[in-house]
Amino acid sequence: MTERRRKFYAWGFEDQSATPEEMKPVLDTWHRTFAVDSFDVTAAPTLDTIDMPESKITRFPEAIKDICRTDRYERALHSYGRSFLDSAKMFRGDFRNAPDVVAYPRNEEDVRALIDWAGDIGAAVIPFGGGSSVVGGVNPEINGTYAGVVTIDMWYLNKILEFDPVSRSARVQAGVYGPDLETQLKTHNVTLRHYPQSFELSTLGGWIATRAAGHYATHGTYIDDYVENIRMVSPSGISESRRLPASGAGPSPDRYVMGTEGSVGIITEAWIRVLSRIKYKASKTVTFAEYDQGVEAVRAISQSGLYPANCRLIDALEAKLTGAFDGSRPILVLGYESSHYPVNQLMDLTVDLCREFGGTPVDEKEQGRNSVAGQWRNAFIRGPYYREHMTSRGICRETFETAVCWNNFKELHSSVIETVNAAIKRVTGRAGTVTCRFTHVYPNGPAPYFTFHCLPDRERMGEQCMEIKIAAYDAVMKAGGTITHHHAVGRLHMPWYEKQRPAPIGAAFTAAKKSLDPRSIMNPGVIISEQRGSA
Amino acid sequence: MTERRRKFYAWGFEDQSATPEEMKPVLDTWHRTFAVDSFDVTAAPTLDTIDMPESKITRFPEAIKDICRTDRYERALHSYGRSFLDSAKMFRGDFRNAPDVVAYPRNEEDVRALIDWAGDIGAAVIPFGGGSSVVGGVNPEINGTYAGVVTIDMWYLNKILEFDPVSRSARVQAGVYGPDLETQLKTHNVTLRHYPQSFELSTLGGWIATRAAGHYATHGTYIDDYVENIRMVSPSGISESRRLPASGAGPSPDRYVMGTEGSVGIITEAWIRVLSRIKYKASKTVTFAEYDQGVEAVRAISQSGLYPANCRLIDALEAKLTGAFDGSRPILVLGYESSHYPVNQLMDLTVDLCREFGGTPVDEKEQGRNSVAGQWRNAFIRGPYYREHMTSRGICRETFETAVCWNNFKELHSSVIETVNAAIKRVTGRAGTVTCRFTHVYPNGPAPYFTFHCLPDRERMGEQCMEIKIAAYDAVMKAGGTITHHHAVGRLHMPWYEKQRPAPIGAAFTAAKKSLDPRSIMNPGVIISEQRGSA
Repeated sequence: MTERRRKFYAWGFEDQSATPEEMKPVLDTWHRTFAVDSFDVTAAPTLDTIDMPESKITRFPEAIKDICRTDRYERALHSYGRSFLDSAKMFRGDFRNAPDVVAYPRNEEDVRALIDWAGDIGAAVIPFGGGSSVVGGVNPEINGTYAGVVTIDMWYLNKILEFDPVSRSARVQAGVYGPDLETQLKTHNVTLRHYPQSFELSTLGGWIATRAAGHYATHGTYIDDYVENIRMVSPSGISESRRLPASGAGPSPDRYVMGTEGSVGIITEAWIRVLSRIKYKASKTVTFAEYDQGVEAVRAISQSGLYPANCRLIDALEAKLTGAFDGSRPILVLGYESSHYPVNQLMDLTVDLCREFGGTPVDEKEQGRNSVAGQWRNAFIRGPYYREHMTSRGICRETFETAVCWNNFKELHSSVIETVNAAIKRVTGRAGTVTCRFTHVYPNGPAPYFTFHCLPDRERMGEQCMEIKIAAYDAVMKAGGTITHHHAVGRLHMPWYEKQRPAPIGAAFTAAKKSLDPRSIMNPGVIISEQRGSA
Repeated sequence: MTERRRKFYAWGFEDQSATPEEMKPVLDTWHRTFAVDSFDVTAAPTLDTIDMPESKITRFPEAIKDICRTDRYERALHSYGRSFLDSAKMFRGDFRNAPDVVAYPRNEEDVRALIDWAGDIGAAVIPFGGGSSVVGGVNPEINGTYAGVVTIDMWYLNKILEFDPVSRSARVQAGVYGPDLETQLKTHNVTLRHYPQSFELSTLGGWIATRAAGHYATHGTYIDDYVENIRMVSPSGISESRRLPASGAGPSPDRYVMGTEGSVGIITEAWIRVLSRIKYKASKTVTFAEYDQGVEAVRAISQSGLYPANCRLIDALEAKLTGAFDGSRPILVLGYESSHYPVNQLMDLTVDLCREFGGTPVDEKEQGRNSVAGQWRNAFIRGPYYREHMTSRGICRETFETAVCWNNFKELHSSVIETVNAAIKRVTGRAGTVTCRFTHVYPNGPAPYFTFHCLPDRERMGEQCMEIKIAAYDAVMKAGGTITHHHAVGRLHMPWYEKQRPAPIGAAFTAAKKSLDPRSIMNPGVIISEQRGSA
């Protein structure tokens, strides 16, 4: 149905893959990391070999039958997100949770018709943007009593409908992918500059529903801050908030919808605030002898009133594994950008601040893609494409992220690193790696992002990975962190999310969901645990 | 009960008043404005002459009887907020809506006991901070069937309970007043710098419950952005969110509570993010020949990536009426501040930008309090103290504010000015004044704040003022503005708020309220229209 087909079992489109030249250094790193000469390579799953039950839904009303698909490719493509846990199951050929139907609405009226129909037949609805979830947000793993699962893929709702040059805002359909959105914005000489790692395969609606965090390390870190209004189709009707730069009229309707992750409706459009294109940039990399010096420097920067667009402290091992630096020291990648004025002086102030904490600017001959920052950026953007090559080799690479106040950071950091290293050893029987970087920083605390690598048993990769993640999540929560800063809750984080959420507010959100989704059909099990027949 | 007594019928404490010297120029302005030589002065209301029914609640459980007051002073003090509408009724001696009981909890346990007791006897509860509401947020004007009204004054919950110098945050009780909070923060060498006009007589809990906007014209305009967590006593139990710098775990529990205005519970504590004390400041005033030039300059500034702490465009007439400038031109008051680095260059960039739109910096001999900005600031801070002197002279001075995207601003501005001038003429039979300033500016639109003066019939001051406000609110909404940027909803704005709020979200918020406040006792009629017995 989609002109250019997405890979059903991995990141990217069928015409995209990491090249052998590109994979060479990556493979070398893996060999070094695990001290092995080679890996057995499992073949990728194929549509005719995967285990997928027949669709439970076979009859469709006239109005929607042309936009509903039940073929194996579409159902397989919409069976999982893109975490390692998903990848492990896909390489095992386990597609038993495939949705029964994949629908491609061509307009809002189709979305409405699909939701009404699903409600009438008692089917669950899973909203699907780019399918890049790493928390099971789009996985049809549902406990309630439903007639089946209808996944609604917003692929065709991908246009900018209106542009307002005076307020510098755009009215955009929710299904637009990152690159397509930027291409369309470029014709108006503006940009959103919202670059989550999933940028290439995630959508505006997905960003808003899951409160994605993007490009900016400080100020306006979340998509939330760029949303002027939201239009959403709920089972209880269409909700459209007033388009405004700000409002103090009661709790923000948009702030309530943002984070519901499809559990109360499907976002079809939003007005978003965009930016003039960037004219001035400055980028610097600073190294520190000790990790704690880097942490203190970043804390000072975060509380200085300087607001760098990039402020990414990467520990020594992660810098090495990503090929950004030699592994002898942690690096701090700094960046400023402006559409209006030169930012060199702000950069100088920031580097001076780093010096106070023992920071040393890297004297860079290489610029752009080959600079330290550039190297790291390439690894960051290409990372998702390597997943399939790791899974096929039995290498587990997973991440988790949080945010925590500065006073708790050091304890969180050390206990998480220790806990995860121990868990890897205990669970897989051999050492792995755990690394940390800051994705975003606030005056009162950082958002640390952890990555771990290990070699689990080939037959139990997913199970062992999950065992390690459970230990990690418990450690994060115990040290005062949030279960997620920007990966969202999905199905994976629900047990910890429900512990974190104040019980009276949880009950209030459950009541709110029942009002918007009386038949409990919207993304069951996400944000609200209660499901049809389960209560 | 309070050591230092607040005036029951006007702004401030009993030991505070505008001095005759201070009033002289103000009175002169009023005489000039309305071309009269003198005003008849109505005497202020006195406790023994006001019309106040007996309290309907006379029996109290042992646990709370010592903190419950039913004397005329306390009931009168808690009968109204501080708008002109309130003032007009107070000067008329109308205290028929006085609360039956005023309770002064000494700790959270008292708050809990009071809410439980009110629920048991079926009384309405009105949370009371500084009582500075200008939208009827604390007025016991209730339609439901209640056994009476219990106002809970948070006066004694006024301490900083914890200070975290590493995250630079403080755990603060909700009842602390602005000046007291800053005094306590100063001992830790930090500041919040949240300065709404109500600063002297409003509380942290009130700011959070109503989403107050403060000092900063850009970036972090709302108190919302400084809140790390909220602890709230609801009829359904105590809710405390996890203290975090940021979180993407579902809809923010705090963003839901902020804006509920006491309708789901009483905020007792919050962790707030504070700032290092300001070391560097720059302030400039720029004038423009035409108002539209000033508007375009501010729009350019708002979209430039420069984020001035102050960016207040004041139209020519308002500048004159406040004694800030001669009335020949609109003025733009600009300010930058930093705890860390000199801000002169940012100011220079901003002034240069103003020049591109015909702006001329005022060459100021006078500095500080006597500068143009200083003059305006004095009038701003002292304004509330003049209210009683205006009401006693039959002068109506009221304000309303909004936020709107830039593309709609000019139409909103002209239609509101025109509508209100016409309404004043029609309703009062003579011309008045309507002026506008920007309190806050965003890249996608400003927050215009309107002030009008008129001379209504002495006998129908409140009614005529309301007639004019209704015309104003309709014009604001028609032109795409919000019913409030930072004055909150209260009881006054409810009809427009309910029009503005998407119906499905309104139903969801109503369901959420029922979950937190099953007996509908919390601030009935605010945010949620449904009341006990009314549905």
